[in-house]
Parts: sequence; C-alpha cells; structure tokens
Amino acid sequence: MKRFMAVISYDGTNFFGFQSQPGVRTVQGVIETALERIFKSRTTVLVSGRTDTGVHAIGQAIVFDSPIDIDETSMKNALNANLPDDVYVKKVVEVDKNFHPRFEAKRRIYHYFIYNAPEPNLFLRNYTWWFPYKLDVEKMRQAARYLEGEHDFRSFVKVEANESTVRTIYRIRIMRLRNRIILIRVEGRSFARRMVRNIVGALVKVGTGQWEPEKLKEVLEAKNRSLAPATAPAHGLYFYSVEF
Amino acid sequence: MKRFMAVISYDGTNFFGFQSQPGVRTVQGVIETALERIFKSRTTVLVSGRTDTGVHAIGQAIVFDSPIDIDETSMKNALNANLPDDVYVKKVVEVDKNFHPRFEAKRRIYHYFIYNAPEPNLFLRNYTWWFPYKLDVEKMRQAARYLEGEHDFRSFVKVEANESTVRTIYRIRIMRLRNRIILIRVEGRSFARRMVRNIVGALVKVGTGQWEPEKLKEVLEAKNRSLAPATAPAHGLYFYSVEF
Repeated sequence: MKRFMAVISYDGTNFFGFQSQPGVRTVQGVIETALERIFKSRTTVLVSGRTDTGVHAIGQAIVFDSPIDIDETSMKNALNANLPDDVYVKKVVEVDKNFHPRFEAKRRIYHYFIYNAPEPNLFLRNYTWWFPYKLDVEKMRQAARYLEGEHDFRSFVKVEANESTVRTIYRIRIMRLRNRIILIRVEGRSFARRMVRNIVGALVKVGTGQWEPEKLKEVLEAKNRSLAPATAPAHGLYFYSVEF
Repeated sequence: MKRFMAVISYDGTNFFGFQSQPGVRTVQGVIETALERIFKSRTTVLVSGRTDTGVHAIGQAIVFDSPIDIDETSMKNALNANLPDDVYVKKVVEVDKNFHPRFEAKRRIYHYFIYNAPEPNLFLRNYTWWFPYKLDVEKMRQAARYLEGEHDFRSFVKVEANESTVRTIYRIRIMRLRNRIILIRVEGRSFARRMVRNIVGALVKVGTGQWEPEKLKEVLEAKNRSLAPATAPAHGLYFYSVEF
C-alpha cells in the first residue's frame, strides 16, 4: 500500500463544496468515485482545507492510500482520465504512510478576487466578486495590518461546535491588477470557517470609506460576529496553495 | 414605435448558438422572451453576426422595435433585469427605423483565444482552446498574410445553400499575451459560416511546423475545403465588435 498526495485544482461553481454529502455533487465525492473506478474498492480522501459551495481551488492538497502498486505519473493520469472537466490533478507524489494534509500544513494561502468596475463582466461572474463602487486599496491595506498576527478572530468566524477561534495570519497583501481586478492574498497557518470571506467583507467596507481602517481593530477586539459586515461571496475565493 | 440597437455580451457555453430554434436554449430565444415580458407582445431580434453553439460575444449588435415609449437607459435596465446572468446588455441606443445590423455592418472583428501551455487551466476550459504543443507565432503571422485581402475562401468555409464564399479580410493580427495566451484577431467586412474557426485551425497547423506558411496560399487557391485542417473549437471564439 502506498500513500499519495495530489495537488488539485477545481472550479467550485458546480459543486456543493468539497466534503462528501449524500445526494449532492461534491469535490470529494467525484474524486472518491474516480478512485473507486481505478482501485475497484472504496478509498477515503483527506484534504488540507475544506472549501464551501462555490469556492475554487488552484492548489488544494489531498491524500489517499492506494491498494494497488502504481507510480506517481500513472496515478496522476488515471485520475485525470476519470475525473470530470472541472477538477484537474496537477501533480501526484508519494508521501509517508502517516502523512496528513490537514495536521501537517504549516501555511495555507487563499486568494480573493474582486472585479471592481462599474459594469459587470459576465465571463468573470463565477470567478470574481463584482463590486461596482470605488475602493481605496491603500485604506484596505492599513486596515489589514490590524488583522496580521495571532488574534481571536471570533468577530470574523462562523463558529462551529466548541472550536477555538484563535488563529495566526502571517500576512495579508492587497494588489490592484490591471486596474479592474483587486487581489487579496491571505496567508496563515489555518483558518476557521468563513474567516477569509468575512475578512474580505470587512476590508471592502473600509475600501468604500464607510469604515475607517481603525474600525477593524475595534471589531476584532470586540470578539462579536454581529459587529462585522456581511460575508463576501464564495465565488471570489480560491484555495491557492498549502505548504508543509 | 422606436428602433433600438443594443450592444450585448454573452457567454456561449450554455447556449445552442444565437439563432432561435424550437426546444433549445438560444441567445435570441432568451432575449425575445425578455422583450416579451417587457413589451407584453412578441418582437423579433435582428443580429449583426449569428454565432454557433459555444461561441461567445463581447460586443454583438442586435436590433429590435419597441411598441412602447421608453428611453435608452430604461430599455437597457429593463433588459438586464429580465435576462439570465450569461447575457448582458452594455448599451442601448435609438437608431433609424430602417437600420439593419447585418446589412449595414462595415467591419466585424472576431477574437480567438488559444491557451498554449503543457497543462490545461480548468478555469479557461470554456473560454480558450487549450493547445499543449509549441506554436511558432512568427510563422503563423507569415501564413496569415496570404489570407488578407479579397479572396474566395471556399477552402475555409462550411458552404451553405448557394451563398458566395468570396470575402474580404482587412487584417489578421496574432499576439502572444502573458506568454501562455495567444490572441488571433480577425477583421473583415463579413464572414461565411465557420470561416474564422477554419482559418484558426489552419494557422495552428502552421504554428506547429506541420505546414509551412506558403501552404496556406496553396490551400486558399485550391478552393477545396477537404484540403484544410479541422475546424478550431467553438469555445475559443468571440464576436468582439462590429462597426457601421
């Protein structure tokens, strides 16, 4: 038996998120179906970071065990031949038998794309958040600085069970690409549910001028979700990469 | 009664082409349905250039008559409010009562996008032709020069009825954008069916080195469709703009 890690990309538009659920199309579901076709037996897929409905991935990491003797390149090709056209395996490498893509991840990077123009671009409707009003990127950068470091992000998290909401953000970078596209890059060790999208929602509120950058410090310290603005839409978010 | 011209954009992925056909979703069909909802009566839409299944538009021009008294901005907003999210009206202007978007078009511009990289990019799967082998853009440019001007394009056309296949191409430009994307821009007065996609198929054959640029002159002069390579896929093609 071999354990493999695969780096995968997917278009989240037509998936009900990553995690298997009965009766709906999920990324985990289509991968496990592809593996079942290849292995002739069921295999469970582990993942670095679950994504919600509509969220995309450029470099998600998954791990699974192979009951058959197969090399990395053949494994990659077999998967791509059995996957639908909205999931693609970029690379397969053999890993240690105990390797876990969630517990051993040291750094996860998310990208969030905003299409900031007065008129929508329909080719980007599922791939960016169309935001038609002017955004002050410099103010958004100032606000982002309050979120870097270790904090209790309760104000920016959809709290589940009794999970801690303390997280460490290594860095937030905000770039304007070719005038109309704003990229928000968030790097951290791990993220709680909806955390990146809630942070983006708050940064955009600063970008419009409705909030001063300092307001983010206040909201963060209040540890109260009801003080933060609405969650940014899922379709602008990409699980970009993970480092171990 | 007013006659309006609308400049529209659409994502061709989920349409069976522009032209209305019973039982399938077409661009003309959804626009006529939207207009019926607004006008409470049926209206026929005229178009500058019909597009096939999977072909997109950035600046297609359509024309229709309004039985109600409505200004340009309200007409644009009413249409966008009643159209699905893969069609967008960019602009509406009132035109002369006899204006016809097909007969009065002086210049049509098509864009064709090739994603030229060894691995596919799934986010571009419906918006570019993924071509994994190396392409020599300089040779493609040399070949394109033989096609500029007035010629009988029978070798590059899907002949329908007894239509003439003589056309004038004003210019073909080929650009490599950000290394992986090749844009082929074709400008002409009008185009016969599949003409742009057949030209792209032949230019790519030159780009790979299988054909020398001079071969295109020979194939053009032979006026025989069976000598030219396969048609390039529909999903790389965009009706970019039209001038009157």
